[in-house]
Amino acid sequence: MSSPNEPAPPPVPFTAEEYRARMARAAESAGAAGLAGVVVAPGPDLVHLTGYRPVSTERLTLLVLRPGEEPVLVVPTLEAPDAAAATGAPALALRDWTDGTDPYAVTAPLLGDRGRFAVSDNAWAMHLLGLQRALPSTTYTALTEALPMLRAVKDTAELERLAAAGAAADATYEEILKVRFSGRREADVAADLAALLQHFGHSQVDFTVVGSGPNGANPHHEAGTRTIERGDMVVLDFGGLKHGYGSDTSRTVHVGEPTAEEQRVHDIVREAQQAGCAAVRPGVACQEIDRAARAVITESGYGERFIHRTGHGIGVTTHEPPYMIEGEEQPLVPGMCFSVEPGIYLPGRFGVRIEDIVTVTEDGGRRLNTTARELAIVE
Amino acid sequence: MSSPNEPAPPPVPFTAEEYRARMARAAESAGAAGLAGVVVAPGPDLVHLTGYRPVSTERLTLLVLRPGEEPVLVVPTLEAPDAAAATGAPALALRDWTDGTDPYAVTAPLLGDRGRFAVSDNAWAMHLLGLQRALPSTTYTALTEALPMLRAVKDTAELERLAAAGAAADATYEEILKVRFSGRREADVAADLAALLQHFGHSQVDFTVVGSGPNGANPHHEAGTRTIERGDMVVLDFGGLKHGYGSDTSRTVHVGEPTAEEQRVHDIVREAQQAGCAAVRPGVACQEIDRAARAVITESGYGERFIHRTGHGIGVTTHEPPYMIEGEEQPLVPGMCFSVEPGIYLPGRFGVRIEDIVTVTEDGGRRLNTTARELAIVE
Repeated sequence: MSSPNEPAPPPVPFTAEEYRARMARAAESAGAAGLAGVVVAPGPDLVHLTGYRPVSTERLTLLVLRPGEEPVLVVPTLEAPDAAAATGAPALALRDWTDGTDPYAVTAPLLGDRGRFAVSDNAWAMHLLGLQRALPSTTYTALTEALPMLRAVKDTAELERLAAAGAAADATYEEILKVRFSGRREADVAADLAALLQHFGHSQVDFTVVGSGPNGANPHHEAGTRTIERGDMVVLDFGGLKHGYGSDTSRTVHVGEPTAEEQRVHDIVREAQQAGCAAVRPGVACQEIDRAARAVITESGYGERFIHRTGHGIGVTTHEPPYMIEGEEQPLVPGMCFSVEPGIYLPGRFGVRIEDIVTVTEDGGRRLNTTARELAIVE
Repeated sequence: MSSPNEPAPPPVPFTAEEYRARMARAAESAGAAGLAGVVVAPGPDLVHLTGYRPVSTERLTLLVLRPGEEPVLVVPTLEAPDAAAATGAPALALRDWTDGTDPYAVTAPLLGDRGRFAVSDNAWAMHLLGLQRALPSTTYTALTEALPMLRAVKDTAELERLAAAGAAADATYEEILKVRFSGRREADVAADLAALLQHFGHSQVDFTVVGSGPNGANPHHEAGTRTIERGDMVVLDFGGLKHGYGSDTSRTVHVGEPTAEEQRVHDIVREAQQAGCAAVRPGVACQEIDRAARAVITESGYGERFIHRTGHGIGVTTHEPPYMIEGEEQPLVPGMCFSVEPGIYLPGRFGVRIEDIVTVTEDGGRRLNTTARELAIVE
């Protein structure tokens, strides 16, 4: 396994000041949207805003952000030392609660007794119900609905990380073209993809889709025991996190020479993907990216076979807003990063998907995945 | 690395009929508790009830169980093939929704327009808010609050898996006693623990705590860069999943000979853990297990240094109800499985924790971890 580049040094860590600025921006955005504040649960929102990844799941950990007030992080007492050690901790106040006491008694006064709050999409229903019960005059809305763009516009340091993750995924694709496909199981090729992503610096592998032949027609097939054969189309879709930021790219390859139909379907998806990317520029609504890609496939007669949205945002997770989907009228803003990944799925036969991460610049879209999109022939 | 036993064959897989019975029992329990039904989100509840582990997170997947009605699983269209392939799928009906359409339009009719539902603790707040908006006359309560014992009483096949996971954790402990501690970093010993758990059949390692010296005084310290030294107490707490069921055991070891105080603190914790285990029998309230263990520590003058609950249930997750905590009046029932893990934490100095998984039998408690609880001396 060759390393095409010298390993780059790790990025400069985020600072408490950066986290302070992110929290302040989130609180301000909430105020501007008429919200009383933001209630942030463990997961990508909390990582983005504080750098803290708690151990707990069922024990309540919540960050409360209110316009003009100091951020407060509620944590279980036994995790207070971990929370205090998070990079963002100097920019917030900690309040802890002990096993056996009511965590909402500590949390409720931070919210006040009325107002509408945005809550992390992935907050536990149990915790939301606890807040609703403790504060019956408060109301809640999903964070990505109320403030969908909170994490969507990436700053320079984040874009650097996303570009590095994309380059590592591209290096993975270049290497996977050299391995043998025919006669091996999908899971074997998936293991190669995972090892390559790690080799190129990923700390976490989120998915390694290897959809050969008919399995490629299921867009969320992962990788199974099917033995790949000569004549198969194979959808590859892989990504994960490198230095805390996501990669996600898809290419469809063919084992040996494709048929005319396979080549034609691949050409259509490639053209659709190009059309989606070409539509990216500031001010364009997200749904226009979906429409641009979908139009190519629909006009070619395969509209019914493109059964998912065209793309999703990427950042500290590999799936997040903004979504490139009909009905999403959010205008694109420079710094947004998302996938453009149309596909065609022919049940029982094969599928094709091509995917790049694209970031919005002042001038248009810039791809963070730049490997060849032509149908590659593998052994 | 020696394997003390021949590897056991994998357990007989659960069947669609077993899942059908579990779903029926859940729906009946809901009815008996005056609920209109149960809304089950991806995660341990869904795995337990159907065997299905969806890829999606932000896309709505929900199982709706109502007394006297066929279970229905709502899934994103592009994951319908995966859902249909789950072992429990023959025991339920599938309803799918397509990207760009409203998933609550499919889900709402399944709930009806009123009634109180239990919802998986870890359901996403976003999805609960979607249900609350679509069905303003329905109300919700956390599943572990409404039906805390839904997964708590394990059947024979589940107990076999938990015992096998416990034996694998015990084998891991026996082996870790043979490795060198002094002069190595906590993270190195943690890596040994992870490798051993996997060697003994774990498919997933959830935690490998190595808390040496002062780090042992933080109960949720994982493992860090601190170099373990002669004279250190070292808390080891490790577990994960084997054949889908959890292990979780703790022992505290000493590098070289302990001081009289270290030995005394360890003796107290050992006595407390024994008292907790000895209190286990059907009909006893969960909080009595906590009280029994805590009384020993309090009477020894260290009550303020036992800063967490005494235990938690274990099953398809490593932390679940029932909780052995003051205020939990749920009586123990044969088949329940949980940890008994008192500890003493002396900030800046050291910690001690001893933990076994215990299952309730007709006669009392049976430990699923049986390694020696005396203070082991390591190198």
